Amino acid sequence: MRDLIKEVFTSVFHPDGMEDQARLQADALSEPGARLAFTTDSFVVDPVEFPGGDIGKIAVCGTVNDLAVGGGKPLWLSAAFILEEGVEVALLRRIVASMAAEAKKAGVRIVTGDTKVVGRGMADKVFVTTAGVGVIPPERDLRAEHVQAGDVVIVNGVLGDHGAAILAARGDMALSADIVSDCQGLGHLMEAVITAAPGLRAARDATRGGVASVLNEIAEAAGVGIEIEETALPLRAEVRGMCEILGLDPLYLANEGTLVLFVPEDQAEAALSAMRTTEAGRDSVAIGRVSPGAAGRVTMRTAFGGQRIVDMLVGEQLPRIC
Amino acid sequence: MRDLIKEVFTSVFHPDGMEDQARLQADALSEPGARLAFTTDSFVVDPVEFPGGDIGKIAVCGTVNDLAVGGGKPLWLSAAFILEEGVEVALLRRIVASMAAEAKKAGVRIVTGDTKVVGRGMADKVFVTTAGVGVIPPERDLRAEHVQAGDVVIVNGVLGDHGAAILAARGDMALSADIVSDCQGLGHLMEAVITAAPGLRAARDATRGGVASVLNEIAEAAGVGIEIEETALPLRAEVRGMCEILGLDPLYLANEGTLVLFVPEDQAEAALSAMRTTEAGRDSVAIGRVSPGAAGRVTMRTAFGGQRIVDMLVGEQLPRIC
Repeated sequence: MRDLIKEVFTSVFHPDGMEDQARLQADALSEPGARLAFTTDSFVVDPVEFPGGDIGKIAVCGTVNDLAVGGGKPLWLSAAFILEEGVEVALLRRIVASMAAEAKKAGVRIVTGDTKVVGRGMADKVFVTTAGVGVIPPERDLRAEHVQAGDVVIVNGVLGDHGAAILAARGDMALSADIVSDCQGLGHLMEAVITAAPGLRAARDATRGGVASVLNEIAEAAGVGIEIEETALPLRAEVRGMCEILGLDPLYLANEGTLVLFVPEDQAEAALSAMRTTEAGRDSVAIGRVSPGAAGRVTMRTAFGGQRIVDMLVGEQLPRIC
Repeated sequence: MRDLIKEVFTSVFHPDGMEDQARLQADALSEPGARLAFTTDSFVVDPVEFPGGDIGKIAVCGTVNDLAVGGGKPLWLSAAFILEEGVEVALLRRIVASMAAEAKKAGVRIVTGDTKVVGRGMADKVFVTTAGVGVIPPERDLRAEHVQAGDVVIVNGVLGDHGAAILAARGDMALSADIVSDCQGLGHLMEAVITAAPGLRAARDATRGGVASVLNEIAEAAGVGIEIEETALPLRAEVRGMCEILGLDPLYLANEGTLVLFVPEDQAEAALSAMRTTEAGRDSVAIGRVSPGAAGRVTMRTAFGGQRIVDMLVGEQLPRIC
């Protein structure tokens, strides 16, 4: 076990020997007024590998994205693994490699970790828990409460790809869709937005519960209404088709690389232009607007000119989507 | 599920509403030369509740202790839960309450968290992963490489209680021992030691693999020998008895509140006196000394005057001890 850990995990994350505890310095953190951002998530996605990613990629991206949407510059990650006895070592190697690659892309370091092994049948292959530390620059203060009437709602691309990809990958729907998860880091995209649109009010990463859940949370926290346009929603034809067959609403499907931004009207164009120059923001588009009335309510103007309420998700979410 | 999370977890950890991501400030972190300490561990202990603690207590103490033995003042923790569907809610409440109590005792705040649910049989009741952030003051630099010949090896109390308590609690040994885990936070004890013995070279928390593993790691890292005295080892009669029956060596049994310190000879008495005034250090005692020869080798003078090598643990450790 010691050898396995050393070889599979430590050798990739800390080629030059690692202490159990990381001791770190960052000038950005000692700037007066800078704040530390700290977040964690466990990942239990099933299947562990899917089109567009694996549990390792999703763990790194998910934590980087949590930090980024809060306005933080992601710096350091921890990675803790719970392994089922007998899990294929080649699988672990692929997961670790994909974490290292994603961390490099995002400009963060995985600086501390842990592995625990449980008996067969006591866990499902591998669970990964990451925590992340970042620094929020002195003047930056993104928060839901800042969102106000007139703000434009922007997303960085098509919706629901992750949820649809996982559903298809499970195979129990007998669907053979060619959908790839949108799993990606959003740190660089967030920096581009903040530079181009410094008035950015708030940002969210639309994961479990999809865009609908994010919109409802923000509407509630800011005490505003939000109105989106069905015809503006960017959806892949395959995802739309799958949703029709299965009776799902793509607004509630999970994403793993989808940014929802609330931008003052006069900076919306600047934000969109800047976003479209980045890989993760190529398909950025405005999907709606914040309205003064009906605090806490999200509505959608449908393709047929009607209006319907987009509620908080009721009932079960898809299990083990991330 | 949303209600469950809100009620069981958020209500205890963040009575006044929590953001998914914590945004924190600490003056200590902006001091020039201060470093940030960052560590993580997953906990899969079986049984989840045992004499002297539960998986929540062990998760908070373990992470606090990792930070403390590196010289860091523990500040903030994250807590991520993987729950098996159908896990008893009353159990979760007890775990959360014990985490909150332990965090309070240690003077840390649990500032961010996550819960994931997996199907029945896909995890064993509950796994907890904590990460911790602390600050290491500018001049403090504890590390194994500083340990040198002549240093005194000190422990804060009896050895092996956690391992023995878990073994007994599993019940499969038909042992009815009355042993309580030593699970406890060591932050305050570490501060007392550093104040009394500022020359402290290095400290370790002897968990999985016991005191023997810590001694071997330090001997190897510092390139020194370490000699301990069998007659000086503080052992509870019940633990000694259990080890004799089962053929176990208490030096390899896990602890969850046991500090191993390496102190310059002229400060050893001061360290011991200071430690003995604290609850966690009441039974502190010197168990050996660092020797110049035989780099990397740990030896024990036995009760009968002989000498034996105390090797790194070979083979399987007790599974799911923490």
